[in-house]
Amino acid sequence: MSNLEGKSTQELIALVQSLEKELAAERSSKNHVRPKIAVMTSEVVDSNPYSRLMALKRMGIVENYEKIRTFSVAVVGVGGVGSLILFDYDKVELANMNRLFFQPHQAGLSKVEAASHTLSLINPDVDIECNNYDITTVANFDKFLDTLKTGGLQGGPVDIVLSCVDNYEARVAVNTACNELNIEWFESGVAENAVSGHIQLLIPGETACFVCAPPLMVASGVDEKSIKKEGVCAASLPTTMGIIAGFLVQNTLKKLLEFGDVTPYLGYIALKDFFPTMTLKPNPTCDDPYCRKRQQEFQSRPKKQVREDAKEEAAVVHDDNDWGITLVDETPAEDSSEGKDALLRSQWHQEAPQASAPPVEAESVVSGGDDVKSLMKRLKELNQS
Amino acid sequence: MSNLEGKSTQELIALVQSLEKELAAERSSKNHVRPKIAVMTSEVVDSNPYSRLMALKRMGIVENYEKIRTFSVAVVGVGGVGSLILFDYDKVELANMNRLFFQPHQAGLSKVEAASHTLSLINPDVDIECNNYDITTVANFDKFLDTLKTGGLQGGPVDIVLSCVDNYEARVAVNTACNELNIEWFESGVAENAVSGHIQLLIPGETACFVCAPPLMVASGVDEKSIKKEGVCAASLPTTMGIIAGFLVQNTLKKLLEFGDVTPYLGYIALKDFFPTMTLKPNPTCDDPYCRKRQQEFQSRPKKQVREDAKEEAAVVHDDNDWGITLVDETPAEDSSEGKDALLRSQWHQEAPQASAPPVEAESVVSGGDDVKSLMKRLKELNQS
Repeated sequence: MSNLEGKSTQELIALVQSLEKELAAERSSKNHVRPKIAVMTSEVVDSNPYSRLMALKRMGIVENYEKIRTFSVAVVGVGGVGSLILFDYDKVELANMNRLFFQPHQAGLSKVEAASHTLSLINPDVDIECNNYDITTVANFDKFLDTLKTGGLQGGPVDIVLSCVDNYEARVAVNTACNELNIEWFESGVAENAVSGHIQLLIPGETACFVCAPPLMVASGVDEKSIKKEGVCAASLPTTMGIIAGFLVQNTLKKLLEFGDVTPYLGYIALKDFFPTMTLKPNPTCDDPYCRKRQQEFQSRPKKQVREDAKEEAAVVHDDNDWGITLVDETPAEDSSEGKDALLRSQWHQEAPQASAPPVEAESVVSGGDDVKSLMKRLKELNQS
Repeated sequence: MSNLEGKSTQELIALVQSLEKELAAERSSKNHVRPKIAVMTSEVVDSNPYSRLMALKRMGIVENYEKIRTFSVAVVGVGGVGSLILFDYDKVELANMNRLFFQPHQAGLSKVEAASHTLSLINPDVDIECNNYDITTVANFDKFLDTLKTGGLQGGPVDIVLSCVDNYEARVAVNTACNELNIEWFESGVAENAVSGHIQLLIPGETACFVCAPPLMVASGVDEKSIKKEGVCAASLPTTMGIIAGFLVQNTLKKLLEFGDVTPYLGYIALKDFFPTMTLKPNPTCDDPYCRKRQQEFQSRPKKQVREDAKEEAAVVHDDNDWGITLVDETPAEDSSEGKDALLRSQWHQEAPQASAPPVEAESVVSGGDDVKSLMKRLKELNQS
């Protein structure tokens, strides 16, 4: 810069012009975003980002993929699992870089801001709203409730809520809001040792809510806050998180676009490639008053209005089992869609052991009459073995 | 730019200086990459990108996570599944934007170049090598073979090959190379309708090679080239691809870092959240001469050298079953690690049906004596239902 003094006016003008050009090029390459696409088509050209998705219609998998544009999805927690109405109050740290989602230059940005930026580069057709606050404080909870209530594309409630948070309080906040607003939501989580996780669909009044029966993984975990305080961080594996995020979004797509079967609870035990599933019936004496209200509404609905898939969720009740958890092998469960039973009823679907899993393990998981505590214990053992 | 003529020399100099500053800022924000980290530590500070991974040691999951730095992994095919010795000859198109990995401004770049750029931004500690050519041509195959043979960190062979390709020819090329070089590899794939996929571990001489028994999904697929020619593209779902990629990398980590159990074959049927597993024994009359050579070497190895987990892979032989495929329920299979049998032997591990899967379906999959064709048929039906 020191030799600028010696330049002629013409040279300086040429220099300004060339710098302006470079800057424009730099900025355009950086902010290169494809234009929005008004109508989704299945046209097979390299420039169509929707051709692979619209092909699902031709293949008979999804009847109406375009319907995806009519949904509003709220995502609470922007970490390894979820990522559009985004809620998070955390900042991006280098310690979050063990994932594909955030990049080092985003360190210090709020997570919702960083995620929103990355997502809009990938797909500018999605409207993304950022909410950079903690939903568990009293004042913020009302804001959260209001956003869920009016966040739909037509001003009504959002279509679904995806919970991707890492603590109990935030899960209870999502649960309370969704019970009150009667919104279906998916809970998701990865264990602290990073080698197991789960997703769970919660339909107010129809399935157990989070307070009726906290997911086994969460219930068996150590309190995360106490761990963080000691300066010891939980482990995380981008692989486990990516798989759980995949299950979460895949089942969300199946739910919203109505194809395939949505799994009510899907677990993932990474060390064994073992995938436990189960269904959990609501607890009629649940502590959440809105949960009890939704249960009454669900039970008083005329039978033909009860959704088809609920009929397939059979309930097997064992009177000598407080938690009503039963294990299902190949036997078809009995039809019982009325949901009138006074017990928390659930099913634990047991898959056959993997190649290298000793059969004794599978046997002990299958043994009938297990309660939640012993199932939790078994899961812990599976994780640790 | 037209009003530059009227500016004084001092004004022009100030303008040049301010433009240079803006350009520098623009460039530094764009190329912000974290410095390399010489030693991985488990220190819990926000700026340590390895703290979450090193925590796996403290939790007793992985004995020596740092060992990850000693491995060389070859990835063939850079698409939705895999992504560091990268092999691919394709260019990034907007049609690839249904994934998180590529961004619109990368359209037109080679896939290896785009992937390498994104990966090095995320983790500059990984050495990434790009090979932008088709491995299936005669001339390129030798280059490919040589790269695998010398691509290890000490100049020896790479530690593992991950195949993430979308066609039969490329899979056979990887298979041929790995049999000749005696390198273990993972095959992966997603079906054309995007709602099922699999990963498979291939250990030359010990498991079936790709020519011994092509994976069911691949074998049941329509020829992709003919589809592409007609201007009709295969469907793809980033969810399915993300899950398969997750399974692939998770099992690669388990294999390289020696934790948990590596699953020999893991399938994923998205519509049912059904996860078939099986093991496939090599075919003593395989068309690939190097496969037969590796089988002889494996069989003549002293028993104590035979890896522990091979002992658990029991072989159940049915003489009236050409393909030797048998279905395993809870019954522990017999120990038979010698691998002396003249038949292609395998196991089909059947998981219990999911909540909403009608039991009749599971039954028909379980029925004994199925050959590969009828299994393929069943898988197709599962995909389509």
